[in-house]
Amino acid sequence: MKLDPNWISGFVDGEGTFYIGINPNKTMKTGFQILPEFRIVQHKRDIQLLYSLKKYFKSGVVRVNHGDRYELRIRNIDFLNKIIVPFFEKYPLHTQKKNDFLKFKKVLKIIINKEHLTKDGIEKIYKISSKMNRKDKIITKKHLDKDKVRSLEKSKA
Amino acid sequence: MKLDPNWISGFVDGEGTFYIGINPNKTMKTGFQILPEFRIVQHKRDIQLLYSLKKYFKSGVVRVNHGDRYELRIRNIDFLNKIIVPFFEKYPLHTQKKNDFLKFKKVLKIIINKEHLTKDGIEKIYKISSKMNRKDKIITKKHLDKDKVRSLEKSKA
Repeated sequence: MKLDPNWISGFVDGEGTFYIGINPNKTMKTGFQILPEFRIVQHKRDIQLLYSLKKYFKSGVVRVNHGDRYELRIRNIDFLNKIIVPFFEKYPLHTQKKNDFLKFKKVLKIIINKEHLTKDGIEKIYKISSKMNRKDKIITKKHLDKDKVRSLEKSKA
Repeated sequence: MKLDPNWISGFVDGEGTFYIGINPNKTMKTGFQILPEFRIVQHKRDIQLLYSLKKYFKSGVVRVNHGDRYELRIRNIDFLNKIIVPFFEKYPLHTQKKNDFLKFKKVLKIIINKEHLTKDGIEKIYKISSKMNRKDKIITKKHLDKDKVRSLEKSKA
């Protein structure tokens, strides 16, 4: 199916997620790995649409999200930076999700500047991302459960 | 805010609902009133967007949906028929919600032909609408709870 870019922007305003994962990771000097992710989750009945979006963005992977739900997930920093960010700058979001996108963009910039490899950078990212995805829908903070937050807060002390 | 019609179509693919209410109503000859409704529900933080959509469609009312959630609701048959239907014919939906729209359109035609004032028409509408809104999300069937379905099925016997 041929998708109009404005249609995609509207659909993402409803169904997309800009997410910053902060994963404890002992192999990193800072103790944390930063994992930005753009995803669109749909019931499997609309899996073809996810493949069309993947084709449109020329990036990402379609995979199981949970149960009957599938997602198009884009994690590649280069794709996020060179395809996803310019796309939503050209075809702007209109809901409060726009703020998530702006924060997401900010974190990407921190990563590109390699600041995420320092404790200061991690703290900055933690501060930005803690104000994201404040939907009344329940968002599974897969990568950042309470224990991890506590360990992150301890590392800041 | 200025909304692109393709953006609206994408947003509705994610967030809109085409709904057929079948309400027991003793004042109707058939015992049922048919209430088609197009609605978009958002958290109150995006209420301005609902007003922008109302302005775009030049129809509907913005009201509380539930708790912190608001909706743009369009029930006027004329508006649904002359504004909403042509809009989604011009700017097509791409998810399976398209099937809901096509069924919705079918029911509107039945209403315009006044067939909904006959028992046959009500049965036809019941059959069509029972295959709508099959999202894995929980849809509140406000107007059609189990008792009402039972009473409708009894009326068909």
